[in-house]
Amino acid sequence: MKISFVTTNKHKFEELKAVLAEFDIEVEQIKASYPEDKEDLMEQVALKGAKMVSTKLNKAIVLEDTGLFFEAYTGFPGAMPKFIFEKIGYDGIFRLLKDKNRNAYFKTVAAYCEPGSEPVLFEGMMKGKITEKVYDEQKEAMPYDRIFVPIGYDVTISDMEIETKNSFSQRAQAFKKLARYLLDKESE
Amino acid sequence: MKISFVTTNKHKFEELKAVLAEFDIEVEQIKASYPEDKEDLMEQVALKGAKMVSTKLNKAIVLEDTGLFFEAYTGFPGAMPKFIFEKIGYDGIFRLLKDKNRNAYFKTVAAYCEPGSEPVLFEGMMKGKITEKVYDEQKEAMPYDRIFVPIGYDVTISDMEIETKNSFSQRAQAFKKLARYLLDKESE
Repeated sequence: MKISFVTTNKHKFEELKAVLAEFDIEVEQIKASYPEDKEDLMEQVALKGAKMVSTKLNKAIVLEDTGLFFEAYTGFPGAMPKFIFEKIGYDGIFRLLKDKNRNAYFKTVAAYCEPGSEPVLFEGMMKGKITEKVYDEQKEAMPYDRIFVPIGYDVTISDMEIETKNSFSQRAQAFKKLARYLLDKESE
Repeated sequence: MKISFVTTNKHKFEELKAVLAEFDIEVEQIKASYPEDKEDLMEQVALKGAKMVSTKLNKAIVLEDTGLFFEAYTGFPGAMPKFIFEKIGYDGIFRLLKDKNRNAYFKTVAAYCEPGSEPVLFEGMMKGKITEKVYDEQKEAMPYDRIFVPIGYDVTISDMEIETKNSFSQRAQAFKKLARYLLDKESE
């Protein structure tokens, strides 16, 4: 089996590829744009986007949206982690969290859609804490992975092997749910 | 003459109504939604939105988008002032600006579109400084107006008469350009 993942982010693509390989599902990366309305919840963005791209390309596709939520600021950075990081950087994030509760969680919603069908949603969540400094600045990593230590670990995501991360990350959880759904569907 | 302003914000509606009254142009408020893609610039959001709503309702409409830009954090809060304020509040904003450059500016882009025509854009800008505390908390005002002192003034926007604000605000500037455009067009 092979599915198409709509993303421009190679880290995300590598993560899905590694997770789906365990299920013998191949994945190709495709680039396509879809509206991400700033008033919409992540779930709405993913569902609408999956339906639109699947219809347009006339193929089965998956896409995902990942948000980050600080306990100290409800809904922040929320569905806007990229925007927030680009604008205020690590310095701004540390200013906001100084002497505050540093608990946070990542949430991924993955929407899968076949042409002519309704999209299906799979979610995953990873809880942890925002660090007080930036780790692994020299290493290639997604920005928040350098300042996030998952519960039960004592290192940041950026300091983990990809296999370790994929054993529990919110994105891997969502992708594994998708994989099981696809295998069940195939065996029906 | 009468035009339709697409907004759900009564402060913005009152401001346009007051500005256009000086030009003997009436304005009615209409509520309609249009996509505000989080990857789009304010100008793109306004132009696309105006075209879409004007086509859908088959009438001439104007809509606007206002952003706020801190010198200390390029592009922030940018086109997301509402999102940012709702999530981090005054406390978060003051944390970000502590011991930083407090210069900032508001920018409004107003897009006017007649059915079957291309939209036209009008801009206005207001420079000033972010205060170190919140003023006029008991008064009805838009959130950032309580912490923004325009250049050349020594009080926040929230502490001004609406006539004073309308004599120079970024939104009034954009709306006045629109009014002159409409009057010129009518006299052609």
